[in-house]
Amino acid sequence: MKIAVVGLGIIGGSYCKAIKKYTNHYVIGINRSPLPLEKAYNCGAIDKIGTVNDLSDVDLVILGVYPGAAVQFIRDNGDKIKKGAIVTDTSGIKTEICSDLTDLSHKYGFTFVGVHPMAGKEKNGFDVSDADLYKGASCIVIPCDAKEEAVKLVSDFNLSLGFGGIKISTPEEHDRMISFTSQLPHILACAYVLSPNCMNHKGFSAGSYRDVSRVANINAELWSELFLDNKKPLLKELDTLISNIQSMEDAISNNDKEKLMALLSKGHEIKEALGE
Amino acid sequence: MKIAVVGLGIIGGSYCKAIKKYTNHYVIGINRSPLPLEKAYNCGAIDKIGTVNDLSDVDLVILGVYPGAAVQFIRDNGDKIKKGAIVTDTSGIKTEICSDLTDLSHKYGFTFVGVHPMAGKEKNGFDVSDADLYKGASCIVIPCDAKEEAVKLVSDFNLSLGFGGIKISTPEEHDRMISFTSQLPHILACAYVLSPNCMNHKGFSAGSYRDVSRVANINAELWSELFLDNKKPLLKELDTLISNIQSMEDAISNNDKEKLMALLSKGHEIKEALGE
Repeated sequence: MKIAVVGLGIIGGSYCKAIKKYTNHYVIGINRSPLPLEKAYNCGAIDKIGTVNDLSDVDLVILGVYPGAAVQFIRDNGDKIKKGAIVTDTSGIKTEICSDLTDLSHKYGFTFVGVHPMAGKEKNGFDVSDADLYKGASCIVIPCDAKEEAVKLVSDFNLSLGFGGIKISTPEEHDRMISFTSQLPHILACAYVLSPNCMNHKGFSAGSYRDVSRVANINAELWSELFLDNKKPLLKELDTLISNIQSMEDAISNNDKEKLMALLSKGHEIKEALGE
Repeated sequence: MKIAVVGLGIIGGSYCKAIKKYTNHYVIGINRSPLPLEKAYNCGAIDKIGTVNDLSDVDLVILGVYPGAAVQFIRDNGDKIKKGAIVTDTSGIKTEICSDLTDLSHKYGFTFVGVHPMAGKEKNGFDVSDADLYKGASCIVIPCDAKEEAVKLVSDFNLSLGFGGIKISTPEEHDRMISFTSQLPHILACAYVLSPNCMNHKGFSAGSYRDVSRVANINAELWSELFLDNKKPLLKELDTLISNIQSMEDAISNNDKEKLMALLSKGHEIKEALGE
């Protein structure tokens, strides 16, 4: 295939590198600023520094930009995409973007399949992109109204890059689950490090501190957008979490060891049941 | 030295194994139930299966049992300890236990130095103990009223087992910092996995889920005791955390992107300032 990757940050850049490392597809890079394109070309992550005019000749377009920018890019350039081409995004939220991009796919005659690669790092940009970023990770695929063969092509393509498995889902299920698995831990990590004791943790900390605080080194702009675009399920998760923390706090405050042990044991049982 | 390790769970067992691997000290194991002692003797982690009567001939006693049990053990057996011997605990909380054990040290003529090895695993018991559990970890040492040479002996001894560094502290500072670095992440992890979405996370999750939920597989009995014994600083941390999560929830609820970005950016800045 001829593939265009739009946006050469960590996600798009890692797609380019993985495609060149693991497949024989031809990769065209498209990016607002020229520097990542030059870097990508020089290290062999792309075959060509492209422009939107190249879209008329590619089979697969991968949108590696922020959700809002992805929709805007297709609004601006959807008319240049080859009829029948497949477009996938890489966004961390789906309900709104899948609806918008499916509508645009009808308008411009391409096929849209939603994709969320469940991988990332605490750093951003092409410099930290990695051909093996997706190794073993889950790839969530949202068929929307794409035909089965397009969904299969997108799934097989992603598996060929090293993903550990494909999870087929709907936009609504995706956003509900992601609010729990990904968004909540990021909010938690940021809230956690705001404690006045955080700056003095060294010497007093080990794995628990490291793991809970890891993702606090956040890209505030990207995540604010993701949180606000997924407001409803996220607020529900936040309410659940605060209420569960509050229950434990109450048990501690009341010296209610039995209640406290019951709550903690539930946590233990869930992890055991999940085999974790 | 002749060293007695009391309690051969993961902490005491790892002390035995590390001492035999990295030093030439003689190790006597003391444990309520015989099975871990036999296992420890058979794998060379201890030189002798001991009883409390051996305490009259040892230079260093390491208490590897729960905080309450540690104090009770010394109440019951303090009279058997050699005069001038050093006793250290391994407890995760210090204010109460350091006070109790210092009092008992005066009564029975030994020296008490508080120790908290900042290492552990999600599993417990001798079977998961490990000669390298302490490799690179911080060892918190609470001098209490011990003389400088005893503190130095305890510090050097622990460094010889592979600890990455010694952090000298007071019981109060220790308990305040531990409520943040260790206790809070354990409560968070348990509260987090209580979400109804948790059991369906597979395929939708990656590193963020894994790291925040890791320590939810908790020893409910031990941690309930630790939480209740450290009530005051822990409740303060819980209040701070809930209030910070609530601020982020409010910003999301009000679509206040500026406020949300400001809060998330603070998290980012703290991690950057810490070089993490």
